[in-house]
Amino acid sequence: MVETRRLYHEKLGELKADTVRLGALAGEQVALGTQALLDADLAAAGQVVARDGELDDLTHAIEENVYLLMARENPVAGELRTVMAILRVIHEIERCGDLMVNVAKATRRLFPSSLDPKVRGLIERMGAQAGDQLRLAIEAFSDGDAVQAAALADMDDTMDDLQKTLFRVVLAAGAPDEAALQSAVQVALVGRYYERIADHAVNVSLRVRFMVSGTFRGEGREPGG
Amino acid sequence: MVETRRLYHEKLGELKADTVRLGALAGEQVALGTQALLDADLAAAGQVVARDGELDDLTHAIEENVYLLMARENPVAGELRTVMAILRVIHEIERCGDLMVNVAKATRRLFPSSLDPKVRGLIERMGAQAGDQLRLAIEAFSDGDAVQAAALADMDDTMDDLQKTLFRVVLAAGAPDEAALQSAVQVALVGRYYERIADHAVNVSLRVRFMVSGTFRGEGREPGG
Repeated sequence: MVETRRLYHEKLGELKADTVRLGALAGEQVALGTQALLDADLAAAGQVVARDGELDDLTHAIEENVYLLMARENPVAGELRTVMAILRVIHEIERCGDLMVNVAKATRRLFPSSLDPKVRGLIERMGAQAGDQLRLAIEAFSDGDAVQAAALADMDDTMDDLQKTLFRVVLAAGAPDEAALQSAVQVALVGRYYERIADHAVNVSLRVRFMVSGTFRGEGREPGG
Repeated sequence: MVETRRLYHEKLGELKADTVRLGALAGEQVALGTQALLDADLAAAGQVVARDGELDDLTHAIEENVYLLMARENPVAGELRTVMAILRVIHEIERCGDLMVNVAKATRRLFPSSLDPKVRGLIERMGAQAGDQLRLAIEAFSDGDAVQAAALADMDDTMDDLQKTLFRVVLAAGAPDEAALQSAVQVALVGRYYERIADHAVNVSLRVRFMVSGTFRGEGREPGG
């Protein structure tokens, strides 16, 4: 029985480690995809698209292993909250990967036009901000740190401000011709993708708070599905 | 100027109609994917996977057109809330399509084993419930009906109960062998997919309430991204 419990905790630890690894993969996609966009590097954009399958496969494998663990071990209380948190967190992370695929596709659509220096600066900051928020959320998950998780929710304003500025720069300025307008639309879409990555990072942090404390403090309902 | 406003309202109307069409496509995927699972019909499951590209393309086209409209017309107040609602609603719907692709893949993994009658009955009900919630959410969006949208949030308990029952039936019962355990895991995953479709329908309804009223009543924060 003691041996079984030890194996059970090993399995739970592996699932957590796999989740952290998934988060690291997503973080690499954010960095690579942002660089591809800034450099108009189609090869790097292609890599981001190709690597997304890895994130999807790992997500699915974790999901199956969580259910196997549930079927075999019937976890309760804190351990049940941990496996439930894993199930939500992996989907939030997987979505970040999908959004970076969208950024990579926008990189292709924008090619070969280059970004206005002001736009470039904003996207650089949004990419860094999205990467930071995601990394901190995964760290909070890994450490079971509710305080860090709570701090993360406040970081979201930075991204919202960056996105509003980007919108103002590209959409409200008007466009001299149809091609410029189409580029502006792609850049606006990219801004949305980064903002949503930040949202997913916030959702991860809400899950971490629930995992650690068993409550969603200050939340009217569970974070969206 | 009057002519321009008329065109603008036509474009906004088209975007709403496209969003409703996207919702209808997702609803068809729920119905087809559920039937494929119940009948262990691999051809139908393949159709669900193949059709998902259509939803992705329509989502992307709507997204681009929203930004074009924003760049050209600079919508404010209620119209701005409508285009912002469209941007969120299409992603909620697109996710429902992705989840039905997951159901189709589970159908392949479960093949050729047949579902226990009790499990079959539960999945049939979950598929119907997911389809109903999605349809009602899209109707509320189409009609700008905040009352119907509010009612939808209460429907979610039904799906949660169905999912808990399904879990109890397949995971808590224990499995005679490894193959049975793997099947149980696939069924549990399917239950999660339906539950998440219902969550997305609830998120659509929260967006509709915001679109109509300008507030998220009873919400601590905006529904998750």
